[in-house]
Amino acid sequence: MKKFLNNIDTLLDESLQGFAKAHSDIIQLHTHPTVVTRNTATSTNKVTLVSGGGSGHEPLHTGFVGKGMLDAACPGQVFTSPTPDQMITAVELVENGGGVLFIVKNYAGDVMNFEIASEMIACPFETILVDDDVSLPKTHSTGRRGVAGTLIVEKIVGAAAERGMNLADCKVLGDKVNQMTASMGVALNCCTVPALGKPTFELANDEMEMGVGIHGERGHETLKLQPATKIVKQIAQAIDEDLKPKKGQKALLHINGLGATPLMELHLIYDLAAQYWENKGIEICRSLVGNYTTSLDMVGCSITLTLLDEEMMQMWDAPVNTASLRKGC
Amino acid sequence: MKKFLNNIDTLLDESLQGFAKAHSDIIQLHTHPTVVTRNTATSTNKVTLVSGGGSGHEPLHTGFVGKGMLDAACPGQVFTSPTPDQMITAVELVENGGGVLFIVKNYAGDVMNFEIASEMIACPFETILVDDDVSLPKTHSTGRRGVAGTLIVEKIVGAAAERGMNLADCKVLGDKVNQMTASMGVALNCCTVPALGKPTFELANDEMEMGVGIHGERGHETLKLQPATKIVKQIAQAIDEDLKPKKGQKALLHINGLGATPLMELHLIYDLAAQYWENKGIEICRSLVGNYTTSLDMVGCSITLTLLDEEMMQMWDAPVNTASLRKGC
Repeated sequence: MKKFLNNIDTLLDESLQGFAKAHSDIIQLHTHPTVVTRNTATSTNKVTLVSGGGSGHEPLHTGFVGKGMLDAACPGQVFTSPTPDQMITAVELVENGGGVLFIVKNYAGDVMNFEIASEMIACPFETILVDDDVSLPKTHSTGRRGVAGTLIVEKIVGAAAERGMNLADCKVLGDKVNQMTASMGVALNCCTVPALGKPTFELANDEMEMGVGIHGERGHETLKLQPATKIVKQIAQAIDEDLKPKKGQKALLHINGLGATPLMELHLIYDLAAQYWENKGIEICRSLVGNYTTSLDMVGCSITLTLLDEEMMQMWDAPVNTASLRKGC
Repeated sequence: MKKFLNNIDTLLDESLQGFAKAHSDIIQLHTHPTVVTRNTATSTNKVTLVSGGGSGHEPLHTGFVGKGMLDAACPGQVFTSPTPDQMITAVELVENGGGVLFIVKNYAGDVMNFEIASEMIACPFETILVDDDVSLPKTHSTGRRGVAGTLIVEKIVGAAAERGMNLADCKVLGDKVNQMTASMGVALNCCTVPALGKPTFELANDEMEMGVGIHGERGHETLKLQPATKIVKQIAQAIDEDLKPKKGQKALLHINGLGATPLMELHLIYDLAAQYWENKGIEICRSLVGNYTTSLDMVGCSITLTLLDEEMMQMWDAPVNTASLRKGC
């Protein structure tokens, strides 16, 4: 295993110290337990957004703490759920009279720990469960996984909360964004979890894995490597089956790098995906291309489509000032 | 070779089409020859900044075209200099009465082609040659290479030009930033150029390459893989030998991912590098961490230190609105 680190046990803490130093204008790192909060005051009664999950997906979620997006993030160990005490501390640090909205990716550990935390806090709360990964059927035993669509929920609901939307309406909006969002990933090579020291699964030199998860979970199909146009078509068709976009609808297209894929290739994927949907009469009017929900050093990408109404578009365009997403601030 | 592409010959064009679609609010793509320009009008007599170089380093330079930074970028084929006709067309498209400042990384092909273009344009021009890579001695036959420090020159001079600084003063400022900037890279694995189909050089499972270039050039030393603290110390000492920072000086610390290194590790490197210089009394007061000057899918990173005076700090903080660097716009 080749990684820049001193010691596997201290990797996360050292990394978070660096993150906090590099972005001290935007966030603050708390330890014992580990929580990242925004370091600017928010208006009283603003709904506060708290998210979290295993580390190794950076910039998700810590890189999205700041004005217009999250109030706090709870980073767990690599690919490991954060603990309830992190979430409870996060709420104590940021809750401001408007209640808490938890944004949780649908994984058993995350769901359980956020539920435990919810039972132990005194303020009103709601939870958005993100399950945008269409590589698994809705009937799968633990349901679908939350992947790159999560940041779209965080951005849109974050903007609404900043404008004063109340907790119940934020919950409705977040659920709507999740329902209007579908994603699927593909990997050319898997990631290496530091504590494991080798790739979670191996692919031959001419193979790719379709429908891969963001923790090195295998996908639903191992295929021979195909030209990008075919890969995009297969993913886009799976997304269409779920979202059933209608001619004339507007959409946000997000191409997400899983960690080790050059931006040059992500832009090529963007071009092909935009063409695919434009040929079907969908208007791709917003975009996001880059490494946002990564899986350590995985070679791969995911495609996310979010159908947009006027409200969602306004919130997507609203100012945001976080370490990894900035505009208009 | 595993990459997302349809055809090696069309990779760059398809990628640029995607880039242009995804960022149509900021840039415009011209073809025959290929030039990326900002799509907003600039004030008459603003000095226009034109850069360019081989592709494969994205987001450099195309991702830095926009308000507060470059006026145009000329992307060559992968790791190949752009041609003079691209540069001449760029000047024709963006020159606005204030003259042109070329920002050129010090590679023989780039230098030659920008010189040829300079001789064929009618307007006043100056050239900043960026050579921040301290892994080679200043006495090296073709001089030092330009690497991740280039974007710092582009950002600082871009802000000055936006505020109305004239061509002669922009040239002086750009040369100053270059002189105050030093960088060095390290790779754990080399990149694969699409047309070559295999890594430019191979490293054993316990080896790393110190002083690597951004085109898969070998470094000055192949070493056994070391803990991150030792890697950072070796690079920082090489930077110190060149820059000779004095106690109390302020500096910008830029940790640049070369393509396939997780953000988690880049933040760890940032932490260690910031500690190193703070222990020597240097005030790290500005930061940039992420993939900015990449080398396709190289596993590695570079450390750049820029000593800052008041003018440079103000220009670093000025608003910028490009595809890959945004603040205050």
